[in-house]
Amino acid sequence: MFDLHPRLAADALPVTELRLSRLLLMNDRSFPWLILVPRRNGVTELTDLAAEDQVQLMGEISDACRALREVARPDKLNIGMLGNLVPQLHVHVVGRFRQDRAWPGPVWGSGPAVSYEAVSAGQFIDRIRASMGGEHAS
Amino acid sequence: MFDLHPRLAADALPVTELRLSRLLLMNDRSFPWLILVPRRNGVTELTDLAAEDQVQLMGEISDACRALREVARPDKLNIGMLGNLVPQLHVHVVGRFRQDRAWPGPVWGSGPAVSYEAVSAGQFIDRIRASMGGEHAS
Repeated sequence: MFDLHPRLAADALPVTELRLSRLLLMNDRSFPWLILVPRRNGVTELTDLAAEDQVQLMGEISDACRALREVARPDKLNIGMLGNLVPQLHVHVVGRFRQDRAWPGPVWGSGPAVSYEAVSAGQFIDRIRASMGGEHAS
Repeated sequence: MFDLHPRLAADALPVTELRLSRLLLMNDRSFPWLILVPRRNGVTELTDLAAEDQVQLMGEISDACRALREVARPDKLNIGMLGNLVPQLHVHVVGRFRQDRAWPGPVWGSGPAVSYEAVSAGQFIDRIRASMGGEHAS
């Protein structure tokens, strides 16, 4: 059984299950922001993952990038694995716009999250799911 | 011929050539901070890289993580691909300490770089090169 860290469970909404990772939408409409969490307990650093999981994760990051570009059409993508506050390996994939709140700085720590309304979160999640298409495992 | 972006050339010091990437040391002794730059011209986003280059890059990120842990013994590693200011794909691998200047926030935009003295930069680079060991291509 995979246990999602409670902070990630509180801050993000479930999108779909990929072969390795749970795909989440950060509940912050300031940025189109996906999070991938490999379903491996006790993994904090990228190097804690087996080599084949690292390769799978790279593919899933790429797929998330493509979906986010298709759905949100950002000016730039930002990818980050930090984990200074949440010690469960997770990958941020964030669409950035030249006029967004934090540009050109990083999104992390750039201000309080602005929650989605339920309907718009659901619509965004549906579009990401459709864009991930045949990629997802469930 | 691969052209390193002038901003990266100005801000970082060469360490070694990996199979895909040029490995650099960010010239900021505030953090032990490596940068990998795939030697592919015209690549801005991760998804601009061919799938086999993405897999190779993941391996080189892992190797850089291991070298940085061995040499600097950080509390946490942070990995980032942002490129909001420098439109040439590059990967930050940064060792973080709970008492560093930016903890637990991100390093990007956390303050001005504090340059190494030449001798200490050389020593750090030698230790990273030794730790990368058989991994490097040159």
